[in-house]
Amino acid sequence: MEIEIATIGGYEEVGRQMTAVRAGDDVVVFDMGLNLSKVLIHDNVETERMHSLDLIDMGAIPDDRVMSELEGDVKAIVPTHGHLDHIGAISKLAHRYDAPIVATPFTIELVKQQIKGEEKFGVQNDLVKMEAGGRMAIGDENELEFVNVTHSIIDAINPVLHTPEGAIVYGLDKRMDHDPVLGDPIDMERFREIGREGVLCYIEDCTNAGKKGRTPSESVARRHLKDVMYSLEDYDGGIVATTFSSHIARVKSLVEFADDIGRQPVLLGRSMEKYSGTAERLDFVDFPDDLGMYGHRKSVDRTFKRIMNEGKENFLPIVTGHQGEPRAMLTRMGRGETPYDIEDGDKVIFSARVIPEPTNEGQRYQSEKLLRMQGARIYDEIHVSGHLREEGHYEMLDALQPENVIPAHQDMQGFAPYVDLAEQFGLEVGETLHVTRNGNMIQLVE
Amino acid sequence: MEIEIATIGGYEEVGRQMTAVRAGDDVVVFDMGLNLSKVLIHDNVETERMHSLDLIDMGAIPDDRVMSELEGDVKAIVPTHGHLDHIGAISKLAHRYDAPIVATPFTIELVKQQIKGEEKFGVQNDLVKMEAGGRMAIGDENELEFVNVTHSIIDAINPVLHTPEGAIVYGLDKRMDHDPVLGDPIDMERFREIGREGVLCYIEDCTNAGKKGRTPSESVARRHLKDVMYSLEDYDGGIVATTFSSHIARVKSLVEFADDIGRQPVLLGRSMEKYSGTAERLDFVDFPDDLGMYGHRKSVDRTFKRIMNEGKENFLPIVTGHQGEPRAMLTRMGRGETPYDIEDGDKVIFSARVIPEPTNEGQRYQSEKLLRMQGARIYDEIHVSGHLREEGHYEMLDALQPENVIPAHQDMQGFAPYVDLAEQFGLEVGETLHVTRNGNMIQLVE
Amino acid sequence: MEIEIATIGGYEEVGRQMTAVRAGDDVVVFDMGLNLSKVLIHDNVETERMHSLDLIDMGAIPDDRVMSELEGDVKAIVPTHGHLDHIGAISKLAHRYDAPIVATPFTIELVKQQIKGEEKFGVQNDLVKMEAGGRMAIGDENELEFVNVTHSIIDAINPVLHTPEGAIVYGLDKRMDHDPVLGDPIDMERFREIGREGVLCYIEDCTNAGKKGRTPSESVARRHLKDVMYSLEDYDGGIVATTFSSHIARVKSLVEFADDIGRQPVLLGRSMEKYSGTAERLDFVDFPDDLGMYGHRKSVDRTFKRIMNEGKENFLPIVTGHQGEPRAMLTRMGRGETPYDIEDGDKVIFSARVIPEPTNEGQRYQSEKLLRMQGARIYDEIHVSGHLREEGHYEMLDALQPENVIPAHQDMQGFAPYVDLAEQFGLEVGETLHVTRNGNMIQLVE
Amino acid sequence: MEIEIATIGGYEEVGRQMTAVRAGDDVVVFDMGLNLSKVLIHDNVETERMHSLDLIDMGAIPDDRVMSELEGDVKAIVPTHGHLDHIGAISKLAHRYDAPIVATPFTIELVKQQIKGEEKFGVQNDLVKMEAGGRMAIGDENELEFVNVTHSIIDAINPVLHTPEGAIVYGLDKRMDHDPVLGDPIDMERFREIGREGVLCYIEDCTNAGKKGRTPSESVARRHLKDVMYSLEDYDGGIVATTFSSHIARVKSLVEFADDIGRQPVLLGRSMEKYSGTAERLDFVDFPDDLGMYGHRKSVDRTFKRIMNEGKENFLPIVTGHQGEPRAMLTRMGRGETPYDIEDGDKVIFSARVIPEPTNEGQRYQSEKLLRMQGARIYDEIHVSGHLREEGHYEMLDALQPENVIPAHQDMQGFAPYVDLAEQFGLEVGETLHVTRNGNMIQLVE
Repeated sequence: MEIEIATIGGYEEVGRQMTAVRAGDDVVVFDMGLNLSKVLIHDNVETERMHSLDLIDMGAIPDDRVMSELEGDVKAIVPTHGHLDHIGAISKLAHRYDAPIVATPFTIELVKQQIKGEEKFGVQNDLVKMEAGGRMAIGDENELEFVNVTHSIIDAINPVLHTPEGAIVYGLDKRMDHDPVLGDPIDMERFREIGREGVLCYIEDCTNAGKKGRTPSESVARRHLKDVMYSLEDYDGGIVATTFSSHIARVKSLVEFADDIGRQPVLLGRSMEKYSGTAERLDFVDFPDDLGMYGHRKSVDRTFKRIMNEGKENFLPIVTGHQGEPRAMLTRMGRGETPYDIEDGDKVIFSARVIPEPTNEGQRYQSEKLLRMQGARIYDEIHVSGHLREEGHYEMLDALQPENVIPAHQDMQGFAPYVDLAEQFGLEVGETLHVTRNGNMIQLVE
Repeated sequence: MEIEIATIGGYEEVGRQMTAVRAGDDVVVFDMGLNLSKVLIHDNVETERMHSLDLIDMGAIPDDRVMSELEGDVKAIVPTHGHLDHIGAISKLAHRYDAPIVATPFTIELVKQQIKGEEKFGVQNDLVKMEAGGRMAIGDENELEFVNVTHSIIDAINPVLHTPEGAIVYGLDKRMDHDPVLGDPIDMERFREIGREGVLCYIEDCTNAGKKGRTPSESVARRHLKDVMYSLEDYDGGIVATTFSSHIARVKSLVEFADDIGRQPVLLGRSMEKYSGTAERLDFVDFPDDLGMYGHRKSVDRTFKRIMNEGKENFLPIVTGHQGEPRAMLTRMGRGETPYDIEDGDKVIFSARVIPEPTNEGQRYQSEKLLRMQGARIYDEIHVSGHLREEGHYEMLDALQPENVIPAHQDMQGFAPYVDLAEQFGLEVGETLHVTRNGNMIQLVE
Repeated sequence: MEIEIATIGGYEEVGRQMTAVRAGDDVVVFDMGLNLSKVLIHDNVETERMHSLDLIDMGAIPDDRVMSELEGDVKAIVPTHGHLDHIGAISKLAHRYDAPIVATPFTIELVKQQIKGEEKFGVQNDLVKMEAGGRMAIGDENELEFVNVTHSIIDAINPVLHTPEGAIVYGLDKRMDHDPVLGDPIDMERFREIGREGVLCYIEDCTNAGKKGRTPSESVARRHLKDVMYSLEDYDGGIVATTFSSHIARVKSLVEFADDIGRQPVLLGRSMEKYSGTAERLDFVDFPDDLGMYGHRKSVDRTFKRIMNEGKENFLPIVTGHQGEPRAMLTRMGRGETPYDIEDGDKVIFSARVIPEPTNEGQRYQSEKLLRMQGARIYDEIHVSGHLREEGHYEMLDALQPENVIPAHQDMQGFAPYVDLAEQFGLEVGETLHVTRNGNMIQLVE
Repeated sequence: MEIEIATIGGYEEVGRQMTAVRAGDDVVVFDMGLNLSKVLIHDNVETERMHSLDLIDMGAIPDDRVMSELEGDVKAIVPTHGHLDHIGAISKLAHRYDAPIVATPFTIELVKQQIKGEEKFGVQNDLVKMEAGGRMAIGDENELEFVNVTHSIIDAINPVLHTPEGAIVYGLDKRMDHDPVLGDPIDMERFREIGREGVLCYIEDCTNAGKKGRTPSESVARRHLKDVMYSLEDYDGGIVATTFSSHIARVKSLVEFADDIGRQPVLLGRSMEKYSGTAERLDFVDFPDDLGMYGHRKSVDRTFKRIMNEGKENFLPIVTGHQGEPRAMLTRMGRGETPYDIEDGDKVIFSARVIPEPTNEGQRYQSEKLLRMQGARIYDEIHVSGHLREEGHYEMLDALQPENVIPAHQDMQGFAPYVDLAEQFGLEVGETLHVTRNGNMIQLVE
């Protein structure tokens, strides 16, 4: 059976991930993501109303025109998890394909919301839920399987396409977490099994491949966060926390430790409400019944007023703004634009790291400066990454023993340390180790 | 009563700490440390046989000649904990003073060993043990108290000299740890009490004053270490770990997790044997009965041979060499100079951070390179610092509300962020906030 | 005679410089500067209409309320050169003092323009021009002298107040340049002479004290710029350059090399027009007769259209925007908001360094990204600093042999390396080496 | 005609460069280099006596066993210039090939000395001199041409193999220098001509491809050096300089400026004597008649004694040790192991940059620390690189318009920015832009 892989997007950058695998006549598309930074550099761009081609020209969404070179029919579009760089282009591209979108329940729900917000295109693809561990036929000879993985968002999987020529493992994005706070540990046993069955190709996320050691478990971040929050138990002023709003496990820890130190947690900001609300509705997390979540400006302001009235010392607002985004809640609090007064000695907890890029670093710096001007004390970098480091990659390669490897989710500089590693497993650049770019086609079996 | 403070050493560098406080006619000396880097830059220097004056000229030990300007009698020499930069000059300087050395039991034991190794001077000072929480009269009007603190070595205290003019709190070195794995949490309650009684002066360790947030608890490092070691449970080859040999809590965690993953821990290297042996003998830690500790070259080699015979997969050697020191055990293992074979895929755990200085960084880089040339996989930076960060300092100042502050344990660049912080508590440079240098005298009460 | 120094502003930051020296009954004020970053962090603040006290509260201008503690009369306000951090608060503070503003001709002209733009206060102080080398009586016993120095703006001097107790040398800001492209070399001979006569106190700019070696001469930057521009001689598309608009020597080099490679230079942007226009009007620089300078939006746009019509290959626009300031000309060009089309292969020359602060770095990064998105090729860091490095400071201290030294123009972290250096000349912290903060008073002679 | 390229060494690192080009039946080998760092990490290794295979296993010299897969006969071995990473393996590998070594006169001379020092192998290959601009037939259909380039060593060329299928340009190592102080400017005219004739393949040195702008000309470094040295004209103590001993243009500048400021230059250290002596003997440089060059320990010591007797203020020793190498002259001077006394205020000029690798950085740091402990003042980084930056690469690609490109002289991380650039010229990864590794074979024409 002919096996071909089109590396459409996310092979020269992080963002706008998209990969298509053809096995005989069947094609499966993995991820359709958005590179938000390519949008934000322009003033006043609203993606909701833009046409795909303009977004492709901007480098914001994958240039899927290469798909025309791929024979066969698209049988499924498979986003691996709900981050924007994996689902953000679905509303712009999926309608071109007569195929269902297959994903885990939480991801499907986020895709649904994405589609609802779209104003240019009507996206009518079927939305099919499949749980981690599930399997689905793709044409007559191939089968799609979801293997449970752990990432900085819940319900993440690595899809595996089983073909007569061996398995194609699409490895974006994951951390090897045996104690992930929320959800099941990574299913290494299944990966090892698949490795024994035979892996034709492994496509892997190289984000942290150049960092030594292993990415700590979410439970390490949780222990760290607990240490910080418990140390503030006696503080009788305001404490505010921020984190990635899609990071439900972290939000859960914040909520629990707030309770432990005698504060009522409240989630504030549109994306806080969206992700945590969705997770709760789908029963992925069990928040306290009275946990407030407010997204609209008015209800947020009303909540802040209530907090000020009832005493800041009784609350833990968990807000958006961990990267210092100019319009996020925390930045607005720093500018004094909300009814919440930050006073001398008040604490601000960043359970996040700055994404290392000068624009972010500048904005985060400004945000912290504004907060400090009002007297805030800063606790930052209480976080662990969602991506494998060097030794996680080593273990994965050891488990899968793939015949071919395609480094992904980075530019070439990011691939480099992964290539060094993969060569230690006998893979050879130009032969079985495919250093590729956006828009390329790799023929594995002729 | 006249109160005067001589800032003798460690006010222009980290290392060779020494401070003398005169309260009326009584003088107490805090710490007598060694700056090892000033020794190591020279080839073939053996401090054991050197004269104090030569070591002073090298900048290796405190220049205590300023003591002659200080009236009154030295009543006690008080090292705060057992690190070399706090006790390493005792064998070279203490014999000049007719005063006992007063310290906690573990520290006293290390001082004793230090004195025993000295070849130039006969040090005859009385060695007096006092536990954290203990008190001792200093002359007729002053009293010395030990407040329990948490640091990267056990049995660390902050000595407080209670005078009629208020307390002098000598704050070197500590982390604010409420869950320190070994020993009691930091006694913040007592610090707050002393703060309410009135603190005339606070001398503080500024090492990490410029780092945001709070230093994580040792229990966070332990959780991190557990995550790494448990992830290696299935590995059936060699695993080697290294850490600061004086860091008994960390060694204890390594020993326990080794057991958890089915490996027998063994401590190897002279300083490993020394510190852990001492801690066990004094009942500070409860190691398994059969825990081997070997310092001499021959017994180390014999142990390595036994490990190779019985199977590397059954052992966890815990060795010296976390900074890549050229003659330490791990570096020698990297060079293939020991009977222990490092093979492809074997794991090396650095439960330590590189002390950020180009010499260390170069040596550690070489050590890792040698290990990798043999196939080792590296896990590093599994560590937390023993020194307060910005928010720990904020809490201490808030607790003590000192009238005067003297930043210490750094050069002026290191003092700078601490000065910014202390000013927020109303302290003023040149008035109550004393930015000082080695060899200065500060008169607090005339 | 009593000598007292008030370190009013610029001793905890770079920006808002202000220092007052009292010699007997006479007071001289050196510099009244603005810290622009404290203004820009707020949205929509217009300093022109703001009251001094609000600007003081923001930390934007010096808090001169400490002046009330200083006896004697202010006899002169002496800005050392025309940069905003040295003259930018004159329009907000000078009217409170019944004293003339004494400065070199170019600086006076910039002060005049500053005052004209002020909308809140009427500043009526006399403006007195004095050339480098000039002297002026201050009261009966003191004399003010201007010693020529070299900096990144023309007509910079170091004022010296000669008192019966010795000279007070106010050393902000300078580089030791023996070949400064425009203007005379630094007058080291006079400094050495003053050193022999006796220097009571030296106040020094520590900006680069922690950098090894010596700051290169402007002639080195010129040689570097020549290398870049001559290498582009054959390029037949657009070339654009940007630099500090107040840096007349650099603008002159750009103009000359433009001519050398067959392009007509044009200065574009309001501050380009302001500084270069002023310099030309006062005969500090001899530009070609037909050199266009345009500041107003309309004339700039008209010029860009003309350039596009006559062929980009014939021009070198020299524009504002070297730090990526969001509204500067070059950033607007990057956004495609001007009639000048940047095309594939066009060159952009940054004859400037990014001021190392995350906000600037973020903005500059964005600006370069926008330019690159249009195809621009970037040449950057063609620059030398205007501030002494370590060895320049060594030479100055060697020349002046001051009795007292006050480090300035930095925070304490910035003072630290200078303190290390000054101690090598026998100065002692707390005695003759005054590590100080904003708002302090230092009594040198009682 | 079949064209094949074997990328033998230097495609995963800097060092041990070696590339073979087969055009029909003729093979030309470009460079045979040594990676010295792979030797130095081991204690007490003497390459002179080692066998090739051991050096290959260490990664020190190219693994040329892949040559057996290449049909045809080696007709020439062509080192591009005299640096060790390009000629250092000739004495270990060249004797296996029945082919002359063809190089420019200076390079040939250095190869000759290399061979003479070899103790293991007898290298008998003919040594053929060809000047820049020269041409030589390679078999019946191909021709070898040397195009003059500029680098940090004199007499560097880029060899071009003209084949019926187009030119193969081997582009290692160069800077685009139009004013190189010594020798002719880079021959861009010839490159443009070759570009018009048609370039089948361009193999390029990516060392600085990730650095913005253009590498400054040697004349810029010279201007910088002049600025530093002239500023020291009045100093009446010792001045010492160090630089790359193979960098004759720099040595020449040092020698000339020494004379300008009234000091007699002396070259000290074995490699100083070797390179400068060779350059002078071959008439590449015109040193003053009485310029002393001493390599042997005894004559160096004698010279130092003479300098101390006649007065340090009359001399400028130019010595080895710019990287802080433990046994180099300058490091020994820092340790006080030579008769030359470094005293308070003496100047040390590093006309070099630290090669950015932790081992070097650690050693250089130690060396400077030792020098400073004796009172030395440090002037460093007076240097420009010998390798093209981003815009130099842009110009080369623009001039050559190659059909195929092979990035070299780096690892994959180093290739990455070059790949981004080359794609802008329409080259495509996997098609015409060959990202390769050591030991690969690339077939360009079948």
